[in-house]
Amino acid sequence: MGKTRLEAFSDGVIAIIITIMVLELKTPHGGTWDALAPLWPVFLSYVLSFVYVGIYWNNHHHMLHAAHQVTGSILWANLHLLFWLSLVPFATGWMGENHFEPHTTALYGVVLLMSAIAYWVLQQRIMATQGPDSALAKAIGRDWKGKLSPLLYLSGIGLSFLHPGLAMAMYVGAALIWLVPDRRIERSLASHHGT
Amino acid sequence: MGKTRLEAFSDGVIAIIITIMVLELKTPHGGTWDALAPLWPVFLSYVLSFVYVGIYWNNHHHMLHAAHQVTGSILWANLHLLFWLSLVPFATGWMGENHFEPHTTALYGVVLLMSAIAYWVLQQRIMATQGPDSALAKAIGRDWKGKLSPLLYLSGIGLSFLHPGLAMAMYVGAALIWLVPDRRIERSLASHHGT
Amino acid sequence: MGKTRLEAFSDGVIAIIITIMVLELKTPHGGTWDALAPLWPVFLSYVLSFVYVGIYWNNHHHMLHAAHQVTGSILWANLHLLFWLSLVPFATGWMGENHFEPHTTALYGVVLLMSAIAYWVLQQRIMATQGPDSALAKAIGRDWKGKLSPLLYLSGIGLSFLHPGLAMAMYVGAALIWLVPDRRIERSLASHHGT
Amino acid sequence: MGKTRLEAFSDGVIAIIITIMVLELKTPHGGTWDALAPLWPVFLSYVLSFVYVGIYWNNHHHMLHAAHQVTGSILWANLHLLFWLSLVPFATGWMGENHFEPHTTALYGVVLLMSAIAYWVLQQRIMATQGPDSALAKAIGRDWKGKLSPLLYLSGIGLSFLHPGLAMAMYVGAALIWLVPDRRIERSLASHHGT
Repeated sequence: MGKTRLEAFSDGVIAIIITIMVLELKTPHGGTWDALAPLWPVFLSYVLSFVYVGIYWNNHHHMLHAAHQVTGSILWANLHLLFWLSLVPFATGWMGENHFEPHTTALYGVVLLMSAIAYWVLQQRIMATQGPDSALAKAIGRDWKGKLSPLLYLSGIGLSFLHPGLAMAMYVGAALIWLVPDRRIERSLASHHGT
Repeated sequence: MGKTRLEAFSDGVIAIIITIMVLELKTPHGGTWDALAPLWPVFLSYVLSFVYVGIYWNNHHHMLHAAHQVTGSILWANLHLLFWLSLVPFATGWMGENHFEPHTTALYGVVLLMSAIAYWVLQQRIMATQGPDSALAKAIGRDWKGKLSPLLYLSGIGLSFLHPGLAMAMYVGAALIWLVPDRRIERSLASHHGT
Repeated sequence: MGKTRLEAFSDGVIAIIITIMVLELKTPHGGTWDALAPLWPVFLSYVLSFVYVGIYWNNHHHMLHAAHQVTGSILWANLHLLFWLSLVPFATGWMGENHFEPHTTALYGVVLLMSAIAYWVLQQRIMATQGPDSALAKAIGRDWKGKLSPLLYLSGIGLSFLHPGLAMAMYVGAALIWLVPDRRIERSLASHHGT
Repeated sequence: MGKTRLEAFSDGVIAIIITIMVLELKTPHGGTWDALAPLWPVFLSYVLSFVYVGIYWNNHHHMLHAAHQVTGSILWANLHLLFWLSLVPFATGWMGENHFEPHTTALYGVVLLMSAIAYWVLQQRIMATQGPDSALAKAIGRDWKGKLSPLLYLSGIGLSFLHPGLAMAMYVGAALIWLVPDRRIERSLASHHGT
C-alpha cells in the first residue's frame, strides 16, 4: 500500500546522502595540481562511501521489492537505517580531511557497523510480516555476507589503532564481497554441490 | 488526481530537510576524539530533529493516504507545513552549536509549535473536503496527541528560561508520545471501555 | 509517456531549490536574540522566495497536468525554467545578507522576470503541441496574471534604485495576485458579465 | 520491474547534482555590481554544466525508456555514471573560481570524458540485454555524437595547456551538437541520401 512512498522517500534520502558527500570535496584555492593534491584522501574516501551507499541502495531496492506490506515498525526500522546512512558523509569527510588518522577510520567503521545492524533489523522486521518460507527468507538464505561484513567492520575498528591502512583494507574488502554478483557465486556453489 | 505529485514533492522536501540537517555536523579539524567531543550537543540535537521529521513524514504519509482530493487550499496548507519544517535544520543547528542555551531551546520549541499548528491546519483543510464521518475524521478521533503536543511545546518554550534541560524534556516527551504506536493504546482503551 | 519522469525531475529540482534556500540562514554564533536579530532580512527574503517557488511549483503542476505529450522542446523549455528558478536561492541570499540594497533587489527582480519569461516560453511550447481550443489554452484564458507580473517585476527592477522598499512592494504584490485563488475571481468576473 | 525505481533514484541524484552546483555561486559580501562581478566565471561555468547535466538527464531518460529489464550490471553501470556526474559540481566550481586556469579546464574535460565513457558503458550494458536489432540499437544508430564528443573532450584536455579558451570552445561545441535536435539532422541527412 504505502510501499511506493516508502521507496520514494528512501530513494530521496539516499540520493541526497550520496550527493552531498561530494560537498566535502571543497574547491581548493588556486588552480594548479598542487592545490588539488591534498584532496586525494578526501576523494578516495568519497569513492569508497559512494560504493557503500550504492550497495545499500541496491540491496534496499531488492529487499523492499520482496516486502508485501509496510507496518509501523518497518517504517521506523527504515528511518533508523536512513539515520545511520545519513552519518556516512560526516564520517567520510572527517576521515578524508584528516588523512585516515586512527580515530577517524574507527568512527567510519562504527558508522558502517551501525548501518549494517540497522539494515539487519529492517530485514528482520520485513521477514516478521512474512512466513519463514517467504521468498525474502529464501533469497537471503544463510546470509553469509550479512554475517561476515559486521565482523569485518569490527575488525576494522580495532585495527584502526594498529594501522589505519589495515582498517581500510577491511572496509574495502567488505565492500568487494557485496559488489561481486551473488548469483554467480551461488550458482557455482550449487554446481559444486550438484557434482 | 494530483495527490501523487503532492506526496512526491512533500517526500522530496522532507527527505532534503532530514538530510541537510546533517550538514550542521561540520567535520572538525583534527582527527582525535577531543576534536569530535564538542559536536555532542549538535549530534544530540540532530537525533531529536531526525526523529521529529521522521514522525512528520510518517503522519503526513498516513494523512494524505486518507485524502480523496487535492484542492488549492490543501496545496498551500501543505506548503505552509513544509515551510515550518524547513526551519527545523536551522533551529537544530543553532541549538546544538550553542549548547542548548535558553534562547535556542525556546526557538526550537517555536518551530515545533508552528509545525504542529501547520499540521493541524492541513488536517482541517483535508477534512473539510470530506464529511464529518470520513475515515480520516474517525482515524484521528479525539486527537489527544495532536492536542497534547502543542501544550508540551508551549511549556518547553516557557521552561527554556528556567532551565533548558526541562524544555528539552518536554520536546523529547512529545516525540515519545508520537513514537509509541497508536493502535495498541487505542485497543487497550477500547478493551477497557468494552469491559 | 515521459511526462511522469519530467514531473518527478522537476519536483526534485524545485524541492531542492526551496530547501537549500534555508541554508542561507546561517546559524549565528552566540545563543541570544541579539545574535539572531541580524538574520531578519535573510528570513524575510526566504519567506518571499519560498512563496514564489511554491507558486511556481503549484502552477507547473497544473500546467503539466494539462500537457498531453512531452517533446524535446518542452523538455528544454522546462530545464530553462528550472535554470532560472535555481538562481532564486542565490538572489535571495544576496538580497537578505545585504539588507535589501538597491542592486540586490534589482537582481532579485531580474531573476523573477527571467523565471516568468521561461514559464511563459514553456507554456507556449506545451500549447504548440495542442490545438488553440485545448483545455490548457482555455484554462489560461487571457492570462492577465501572466501579463501583469512581468510588468511588476520590471517596475520593481527600476524602482530598486529609487527605493528598495518600493521594489519589494512590487514583488510582494505580484506574489499576492498569484496566491489569491483564480476561480473565485473568474467567477466574480463571470457573474458581473452575466448581469 | 525495478526500472521505475532506477529512474526515480537517478532523477533524484541528477536533480541534486544540478541544484547543488548553484551553491558554488557563493553570495558575495557587499551589495553592489562590483561585489558581483568576480562571479561571472563561476556563473558561466554553472550555465555550461547545467546544460551538460540537462543533456545527460535528457539522454538518460530516453535510454532507460528503451530498456526492458534492469540487471545487476545495469544498476552498477548506472551508479558509475552518477558517480562521474556527481563530480561535475566540483570541477565546475574549481574552474569558475580560478577563472578557467589551464589545470581547471583540463580537469573539467576529464570529468566530461569519464562521464561520456560511463554513459557509453551503461548503453552497452542495456543493449547487451537486448538483441542487436533492438529499438535502442536502432535509435542509437551509428552514434556519431557519442563518438565525436569524447574526441572533443580529449582535444579540450590537451588544448587546456595551450589556451583554456580553446578548451572551452571544445566543451561548448560538444554541448551544442547534443542540443541540436537529432531528428532534423537525421532527416536532412536522409533527404540528402534520398536525392
